[in-house]
Amino acid sequence: MPAPVLTLQEVAEIVGGRLVGPGAVKIRSVAPVEEAGSEELGLLATKRYARFVPESAAGALLVSAELEATVDEGIPMVVVDDAHRALAALLRHLHPEKRPEARIHPTAVLGRGVRLGNDVGLGPYSVVEDGAEIGDGCRIGAHVVVGRDARLGRGCVLHPHVVLYARTVLGDDVIVHSGARLGVDGFGYTFEDGAHRKVPQVGRCVVEDGVEIGANTTLDRGSIGDTVIGRGTKLDNLIQLGHNVRVGALSLMASMVGVAGSTRIGSGVLLGGQAGVIGHLEVGDGAQIAAAARVMRDVPAGETVAGDPARPNREYLRTRAMVERLPRLAKRIKALEEAVDALHERR
Amino acid sequence: MPAPVLTLQEVAEIVGGRLVGPGAVKIRSVAPVEEAGSEELGLLATKRYARFVPESAAGALLVSAELEATVDEGIPMVVVDDAHRALAALLRHLHPEKRPEARIHPTAVLGRGVRLGNDVGLGPYSVVEDGAEIGDGCRIGAHVVVGRDARLGRGCVLHPHVVLYARTVLGDDVIVHSGARLGVDGFGYTFEDGAHRKVPQVGRCVVEDGVEIGANTTLDRGSIGDTVIGRGTKLDNLIQLGHNVRVGALSLMASMVGVAGSTRIGSGVLLGGQAGVIGHLEVGDGAQIAAAARVMRDVPAGETVAGDPARPNREYLRTRAMVERLPRLAKRIKALEEAVDALHERR
Amino acid sequence: MPAPVLTLQEVAEIVGGRLVGPGAVKIRSVAPVEEAGSEELGLLATKRYARFVPESAAGALLVSAELEATVDEGIPMVVVDDAHRALAALLRHLHPEKRPEARIHPTAVLGRGVRLGNDVGLGPYSVVEDGAEIGDGCRIGAHVVVGRDARLGRGCVLHPHVVLYARTVLGDDVIVHSGARLGVDGFGYTFEDGAHRKVPQVGRCVVEDGVEIGANTTLDRGSIGDTVIGRGTKLDNLIQLGHNVRVGALSLMASMVGVAGSTRIGSGVLLGGQAGVIGHLEVGDGAQIAAAARVMRDVPAGETVAGDPARPNREYLRTRAMVERLPRLAKRIKALEEAVDALHERR
Repeated sequence: MPAPVLTLQEVAEIVGGRLVGPGAVKIRSVAPVEEAGSEELGLLATKRYARFVPESAAGALLVSAELEATVDEGIPMVVVDDAHRALAALLRHLHPEKRPEARIHPTAVLGRGVRLGNDVGLGPYSVVEDGAEIGDGCRIGAHVVVGRDARLGRGCVLHPHVVLYARTVLGDDVIVHSGARLGVDGFGYTFEDGAHRKVPQVGRCVVEDGVEIGANTTLDRGSIGDTVIGRGTKLDNLIQLGHNVRVGALSLMASMVGVAGSTRIGSGVLLGGQAGVIGHLEVGDGAQIAAAARVMRDVPAGETVAGDPARPNREYLRTRAMVERLPRLAKRIKALEEAVDALHERR
Repeated sequence: MPAPVLTLQEVAEIVGGRLVGPGAVKIRSVAPVEEAGSEELGLLATKRYARFVPESAAGALLVSAELEATVDEGIPMVVVDDAHRALAALLRHLHPEKRPEARIHPTAVLGRGVRLGNDVGLGPYSVVEDGAEIGDGCRIGAHVVVGRDARLGRGCVLHPHVVLYARTVLGDDVIVHSGARLGVDGFGYTFEDGAHRKVPQVGRCVVEDGVEIGANTTLDRGSIGDTVIGRGTKLDNLIQLGHNVRVGALSLMASMVGVAGSTRIGSGVLLGGQAGVIGHLEVGDGAQIAAAARVMRDVPAGETVAGDPARPNREYLRTRAMVERLPRLAKRIKALEEAVDALHERR
Repeated sequence: MPAPVLTLQEVAEIVGGRLVGPGAVKIRSVAPVEEAGSEELGLLATKRYARFVPESAAGALLVSAELEATVDEGIPMVVVDDAHRALAALLRHLHPEKRPEARIHPTAVLGRGVRLGNDVGLGPYSVVEDGAEIGDGCRIGAHVVVGRDARLGRGCVLHPHVVLYARTVLGDDVIVHSGARLGVDGFGYTFEDGAHRKVPQVGRCVVEDGVEIGANTTLDRGSIGDTVIGRGTKLDNLIQLGHNVRVGALSLMASMVGVAGSTRIGSGVLLGGQAGVIGHLEVGDGAQIAAAARVMRDVPAGETVAGDPARPNREYLRTRAMVERLPRLAKRIKALEEAVDALHERR
């Protein structure tokens, strides 16, 4: 499906930007500035990529206002305040969302008492177990397993190979990527009679409206009570959230984050890739956890933390600088020792 | 399936605890103290959660003896020595294990020479390849692939979407969660003629009795010889064990642990989340590896290690404290320099 | 399938090694020296394992030349310069690659306009969506989903449960292990009107010839433009590469590596397990990133980096040693303070 052709003038209108140069230049798609061809709009959103402009074959550029001056005269462009937001608007125009058709594939296996809403699609070899309920407009991919008594709201998209364990609950407009496992038994054992005995995991995994969950991410069900992912929160690939973790609304977790059991993450929290949070903590609203930080204490609302163990960012940076200066500190100590020896001797 | 209703008196008997208050209070389920409703038993196992008691709507509490004094008079409760163990006992009573029925779904694909024990369940679209053997009482979930010549003991539960590569061996009562991959080719290449050439991976992945393996965990087969997970060991989600890793009995690995090839982990070892162990090491029996520790040397039996690189815990804590005190050390050096300068000048 | 029996003389010829002792000894397979039985060839490639030789039951040994002297006289062996390469040659002889037969299983689901080459195998319950193209000699495992308009070259092997999102491109001879997800939507949102709005992810995931991809690894498609894995590069299990990451030829990434969006990794680069690289960086050709290193700046070609944050290896080792010596530094400062006090008082 070739995307429609736009003129640069039309691009400027779609993104609400300022046209510089001829408005008739034709644009077929968008590409990073260093890869864009003659019928493509090259994206220049950050200074780092300005060095690629002189050799770019792009037919025109989409440029952040602060970088306009770095572009040689004569290159057609659309200048915007926020190039990422403009890019998003343009992509939504060029690639309007197309759901697969609402077909129930003849190989879909439906258990007893399953309730399907209107306009539901079930992919080849999907399995919906007894008592599950799927809301209007959902699209369930190939090989997906919707466990017993699971409940999906409206408009959810489950990509191929998602597994929802029994009694998992999704709100409306949830997107789950391939291989994500929701409602997995948490890691709970008691040591009795010389063995680790499994503690029944009887809570649920509850995912609120508008959440997106990345590929191969694993979310445990609650041990007792629920694991909850709040409205509009987005989780990247290969994340692990333990039993009874609660995440507020509109938080973002980059890939490979791990959060241990019963920790509560607030709303609007950002967690960088590979960050880890131990169990039974509270991370306040709006906190920011740097990539690879190891959080071992509560984080107050609004705080930015980094490092291993994680500490307030300013402290982290200061400590890091001190560690780097250690060889110099050692030299100063040596010099002091010599000076003090000299003072003793001269006496 | 609503759980049976118990009286608080019955709860006390099931968990072997001491009843405080009216024994006739009705309990339908258990919940964390901060979430429990009027017909629920609120769990109060650790001090951290005592602050939620005053506002809890719980009909009664299950309380660790050491926290009994923190609970206001008049709240019905059962007091026990070990609240986690009591919880486990109660949950096992309320939620007795129910295996899915032993049905061979008509869509299960069986290869040549497959041997199935008695009372085996095969889920929709499961595939059992040539020569595989599945013991009595196993439950194989939807879409599971049991590779050629794989062998399962009795009573194993494979959740949907598990893949066992060829010749993988499971003992009795092994539980494998969704998306786990067992017996994957290890990462082995030789650089020849300008390319990384694959070294055939011909060993097996052998999992002993009573092991549980988390969702999306990956276990490599041996390169030559076997990868072995010992009796009763429990692995959480998203763990990676390289080729020829050997883990002893009754060890616990939290999620996202990675162990590189040929390392031997003893029995009763604990590994915290996101910990990493490089290849060809020995971690002795009963060792404890802290979350996110990076193990780069052998760990003696019984040792607790932490940090990056991992070192004995006392040393880790001391070094960490020293690093935090670095700004003060730097100030003391500055003060010394001034004092020494003053001594020089006064002379 | 029992492997063929070889004489030790034949082993020596296959690996181009020197026979020590009787050439008629019979060998059925190869095993680590500490596990080898009487008809097995024990591998002794590194000094660390020499301690197992005296008690080994191996019928004969395959020994690195530098370790020959550590082996007691009278043990039959084949001595080689590079034991790992010799092992690889021997395993390739003993276990020649056997592809599954090129059968199109009757349960395979083919969309409209699918093109299949000659000698293609499609496993049970595999799904090939509309417009996809699969080259000669490919083997597609059970439950694999090949997305709409995806394109596979010749001789690719997709193990069970692989998912290729729409428009993913594989070159020739690509191997993908179970549960890998290629072409997943990247993690891209704009915050508008109080919500994280999804930015359409319209690029592709392009994998060049001879790449191998581990189990449960996730590769995002490009946001705009492509994510590219270069010729002959090998990725281990549970790796995450963000949108628009580009990896050159012949690089190796051990398991659990994470690379954030738009970073470019050169050719011949090595990344150790659990290493992380933030977004928009350049890692030059031939660079080496130690296990668990956190790369937060560009890495020049040929550089070896380690630590958190990653720095040149020599600097990392020096800083690490300084940190370990901190308690001694603190003592020296204390001693200086006392000496200076004494000098003041004596005056």
